[in-house]
Amino acid sequence: MSERIVINDVGPRDGLQNQPKILSVEERLAMIRSLAAAGVKHIEVGSFVSPKAVPAMSGTDQVVAGLPDDDVTYSALIPNMKGYELARAAGVKTVAMVIYGSEGMAQANVNMGMLRTEEITADILALAKQDGISVLATITTCFACPFDGPTDPAVVEDIAARFLAQGVDELIIADTIGAADPQQVRSLTASLVSSHGSDRLGCHFHDTRAMGVANVFAAVESGIRRFDSSIAGLGGCPFAPGATGNVASEDVVMMLQQMGFDTGIDINRLLAASDLAEEVTGSAPGGRSKPWLKPWLAKQAG
Amino acid sequence: MSERIVINDVGPRDGLQNQPKILSVEERLAMIRSLAAAGVKHIEVGSFVSPKAVPAMSGTDQVVAGLPDDDVTYSALIPNMKGYELARAAGVKTVAMVIYGSEGMAQANVNMGMLRTEEITADILALAKQDGISVLATITTCFACPFDGPTDPAVVEDIAARFLAQGVDELIIADTIGAADPQQVRSLTASLVSSHGSDRLGCHFHDTRAMGVANVFAAVESGIRRFDSSIAGLGGCPFAPGATGNVASEDVVMMLQQMGFDTGIDINRLLAASDLAEEVTGSAPGGRSKPWLKPWLAKQAG
Repeated sequence: MSERIVINDVGPRDGLQNQPKILSVEERLAMIRSLAAAGVKHIEVGSFVSPKAVPAMSGTDQVVAGLPDDDVTYSALIPNMKGYELARAAGVKTVAMVIYGSEGMAQANVNMGMLRTEEITADILALAKQDGISVLATITTCFACPFDGPTDPAVVEDIAARFLAQGVDELIIADTIGAADPQQVRSLTASLVSSHGSDRLGCHFHDTRAMGVANVFAAVESGIRRFDSSIAGLGGCPFAPGATGNVASEDVVMMLQQMGFDTGIDINRLLAASDLAEEVTGSAPGGRSKPWLKPWLAKQAG
Repeated sequence: MSERIVINDVGPRDGLQNQPKILSVEERLAMIRSLAAAGVKHIEVGSFVSPKAVPAMSGTDQVVAGLPDDDVTYSALIPNMKGYELARAAGVKTVAMVIYGSEGMAQANVNMGMLRTEEITADILALAKQDGISVLATITTCFACPFDGPTDPAVVEDIAARFLAQGVDELIIADTIGAADPQQVRSLTASLVSSHGSDRLGCHFHDTRAMGVANVFAAVESGIRRFDSSIAGLGGCPFAPGATGNVASEDVVMMLQQMGFDTGIDINRLLAASDLAEEVTGSAPGGRSKPWLKPWLAKQAG
């Protein structure tokens, strides 16, 4: 039996939110269904935020209403208590929240202090426990912030310790702007796994500096067994000029499977999902391995 | 003092040979000068092969004659004794040779057996020692062969042990078709470094499956301190459909410098060399980090 690694595809939320085209609810659902059909068991499907601020995520309640009744964990991002209430009313079973690893990013993104974002998340976490709703929390800018520069790993470790102690269901260490190198990733994730085990830890990388896949490998070496990635490399970051998207699901899955890990994902169907994401957005870059992977898989199929 | 890592830029040979446009001697020299100006101290400048078989490398004797008299190690690829004699006559001080790590690749590429390629290299190595010429030997397809499938690491370790014992100056472990994953790289390179130390070992990766940079990191972790890379990611492999080029020098140098290693290379000037390579070839992909790196460096410069 090979060891399991969980892939959480964030393309339908993080990806779509950071590209120019606004998709219809049906297009978003088609993307989500294509991922589920490939065997992706964790998918971020949308967010309950102001449609004015983020028009691409308008209609997330309809997306949630249209989700199939299957064994996939569908999560939705919420920024605050209002978002939580909307998500709960829509029937969401897993909410995703953002905690800020740097003051500059917190101010720029949500116009409040880091500690305030922690308080909001802690309050909702307590309520969600009563409601039987799971909470994923992402710590942003764990390695560097475009405003504050390098992030002190001790700051991240402190936040992580607090939220794991409070019973957060999963905690994601995010390199929001794609600034980390694999040595930094190796070091921080090894320390976190050593303190807390890896059951509730995950990582989220961008490929801005071409180190996204290397960072996944570095985290795997530290024992991380859960990764965010984005189908077709969809996404980006408005605060990092030239930033490419999230590390592409197809690149991550191919590497992990080649290294002998079980992702539960059918790579052929994942490529179909990637093709669809490219088609509906018109701007998804596609995984970096795709120009090789597609003809290679076609050849295998005879 | 930070630890040194040597970058050997193979763009002017391996890179140019695997792209469609034939450059003039002056264009090739301009590329080489731009690399030397960036602080690259090891550059593969051409090959002494049949101009009919490899027209892009025609005139390598003129390239060698036009090289500046500086402290850079300029190497030229030779396939056999005739190539050795031509290189020696041209005044080359370092020759690069290829040993085959798989039978299928040896047959396809040079129409002879693996062992015969070893014999040719061993004969030339003995002669080069008398002539005071250094020999770099590259073992191809160390992880997988497009014809024979996965390569047994024991085969690579045996070849490596033989050539290191014979006094080869540098031995390069090559993932010729870009098939390796970082776990395989970590394992093979750790074993080789454990047996032989790292002084005469290097690695050569392609980015076909988007794991090139991850493989560099994996080899660094094993103690490898010498890497081939290609400016602007020039190159490819005629036997791997969809194969992208060698891992880009700018991506490798940026990662290594961020991780605290000293490459001796000025990243701004390296990007200028990358721009030139893109300009003269018209097809070099450019490093994957370049869309981010260029504006970022411009911003740093004010």
